[in-house]
Amino acid sequence: MSYFIFYKKLGFLNIEGLFLHSQRIKMFESKNPLRTPISDLGEFGLIEHLTKNVKINQATTVKGIGDDAAVISSEKDMLQVVSTDLLVEGVHFDLSYMPLKHLGYKAVMVNLSDIYAMNAEAKQITVSIAVSNRFPVEALEELYDGIQTATKIYNVDLVGGDTTSSTSGLVISITALGTVTKEKIVYRNGAKENDLLVVTGDLGAAYLGLQVLEREKQVFEANPNAQPELDNYTYLVERQLKPEARKDIPKLLEDLEVVPTSMIDISDGLSSEIIHLCKSSEMGCNLYEDKIPLDPQVISTCEEFELDSTTIALSGGEDYELLFTISTEDFPKIKANPNLTVIGHITNKKEGMHLITRADTKIPLIARGWNSMKEE
Amino acid sequence: MSYFIFYKKLGFLNIEGLFLHSQRIKMFESKNPLRTPISDLGEFGLIEHLTKNVKINQATTVKGIGDDAAVISSEKDMLQVVSTDLLVEGVHFDLSYMPLKHLGYKAVMVNLSDIYAMNAEAKQITVSIAVSNRFPVEALEELYDGIQTATKIYNVDLVGGDTTSSTSGLVISITALGTVTKEKIVYRNGAKENDLLVVTGDLGAAYLGLQVLEREKQVFEANPNAQPELDNYTYLVERQLKPEARKDIPKLLEDLEVVPTSMIDISDGLSSEIIHLCKSSEMGCNLYEDKIPLDPQVISTCEEFELDSTTIALSGGEDYELLFTISTEDFPKIKANPNLTVIGHITNKKEGMHLITRADTKIPLIARGWNSMKEE
Repeated sequence: MSYFIFYKKLGFLNIEGLFLHSQRIKMFESKNPLRTPISDLGEFGLIEHLTKNVKINQATTVKGIGDDAAVISSEKDMLQVVSTDLLVEGVHFDLSYMPLKHLGYKAVMVNLSDIYAMNAEAKQITVSIAVSNRFPVEALEELYDGIQTATKIYNVDLVGGDTTSSTSGLVISITALGTVTKEKIVYRNGAKENDLLVVTGDLGAAYLGLQVLEREKQVFEANPNAQPELDNYTYLVERQLKPEARKDIPKLLEDLEVVPTSMIDISDGLSSEIIHLCKSSEMGCNLYEDKIPLDPQVISTCEEFELDSTTIALSGGEDYELLFTISTEDFPKIKANPNLTVIGHITNKKEGMHLITRADTKIPLIARGWNSMKEE
Repeated sequence: MSYFIFYKKLGFLNIEGLFLHSQRIKMFESKNPLRTPISDLGEFGLIEHLTKNVKINQATTVKGIGDDAAVISSEKDMLQVVSTDLLVEGVHFDLSYMPLKHLGYKAVMVNLSDIYAMNAEAKQITVSIAVSNRFPVEALEELYDGIQTATKIYNVDLVGGDTTSSTSGLVISITALGTVTKEKIVYRNGAKENDLLVVTGDLGAAYLGLQVLEREKQVFEANPNAQPELDNYTYLVERQLKPEARKDIPKLLEDLEVVPTSMIDISDGLSSEIIHLCKSSEMGCNLYEDKIPLDPQVISTCEEFELDSTTIALSGGEDYELLFTISTEDFPKIKANPNLTVIGHITNKKEGMHLITRADTKIPLIARGWNSMKEE
């Protein structure tokens, strides 16, 4: 399958720059008539140009882009939640296989995921970018297209930001704002002994998607005429290039009348997040290896790459699923739901944090995020 | 005056890295026992280490650092204002003469200035940094020391952020949150014909401070034993290295019972900000050259550097003063105040935006921010 068809399948029909690194950079650096230098617009012209189609949908957004600050009205009895993330080229993304539209979309997802992890509704975002002049205006249009697609689908308003030049790579800083009632807000630190450990979706696919893309990049670098083979990895690559934050989960929990005792989003790998949650709650846990939800493509690709699927699920990262704990009383409410899997339970702190393997041995959980994995 | 004594005079008594570029880098790169690599702590350890002394002072801060998002309670009838800025090494700052503690302090000021420009009170900030491993933990401690000093003096809470690695320079992204009542919020777009144009403080000093530091850097590079001569430029260099946002102005306006019709902060130069304000308000203006407030050190240094002081005030930037318009009825309330200078008035849009020179000629205002100036 060609990249072109492949990226179409991800749901973005008109993306630019569908090809691999050298071709993309060549396209950007060529003096073709579609390439508009950022300096043609200037900083203020650039912001205006990129955000001219931004629409405001949230009732609480009083003033969006165009003043010293955005203005948001407060809602009675609501708490406001604020989260921020910084994405750096060469650290968090590689433009050789990450089209800018996807990058914009994913950058929004990374931030919204933190809002949903508070059991809140996301309402507004601000987006700041630092960009070197190797990017033409058209590349930034592509990036903002992804950002605005995400804001439409997730019903959040883009209310402000900053655009500046960079001496080297692209940096994206997003701040997300949301609201939730006092009764429904969920912190990391509320897990109690015997609570059930629940995870949404399945794990490990985004990390494997990255491995597949890295491999294809090397194949391409050795032979630019080789067509990448992605048919068997569509789910993995989609999870890497176009993840979806779990906006549906706070709504689902409300419908099920469940308020988790604690919650966190899975960005650095299940193991690392469970440890955060247990440490914040001053608890221990038992996690059951055979309960960890894995997509069939994760299992088959782990076999092909000779990787242990449990290790990938525990340490892969970038899943943007939610991990939460519920009281055992709430178990009947969630047990039939295909989005939710019980993977273990909370124990007393002194029992420690353990993985119970398929062979029924008990091994301590260790945090190894995807960053540290890469160093191996 | 030595740099050491000089920086002490800026009000930071225990800053590290008081010397010029080569010495600072040498210090950071040497294997002395005070240099702790960031990798010793890891990402989570680093955040914990840097923010362990953070205290919460605002009643509305429900939850600060340590969860997926910070949590802020809403206040009845208050609007929330949100502003964000990105500072990039090599674009916005040069570490050869900007000690990291000052940089941290200034980064907070840049953001708070936008909040005060809405006539609001700043309450919370989030701080994200991307940093390469050429910075030891001690350098980041210095940066956070400046950030936390600013939060104490300006009474805002540091409630969250992100810390990540960078492939090259240092990037700082700050988001500031504040509150203001519906009655007191001031936008850019409310200026009316005949309103008076008012500016706080004086202008042009920060830009000249940068010129002085650039000159001293060149002297130092030619002869590392030369002592920089800064005695005649203390105010200029302080305005560049340790600006103060005008937290006092919303309070002063309240005491004077004045609500400006429009307001903006001066970050890119007076000329550029007046144009923003007039365009947003769909108005014109007359600005009087002889009314522009200048410090005596600005005047004497402009003579020495053979620069036109009006050009510097109009296009220098980084003043972080406030520019606002008031109804002529309010003039008696502000006229005696030494913090405020009337520099012109608002006209009908079709009259355009003009500078009335000392020679009484009328020339069109042109936006030339400090960035474009540098290219000359």
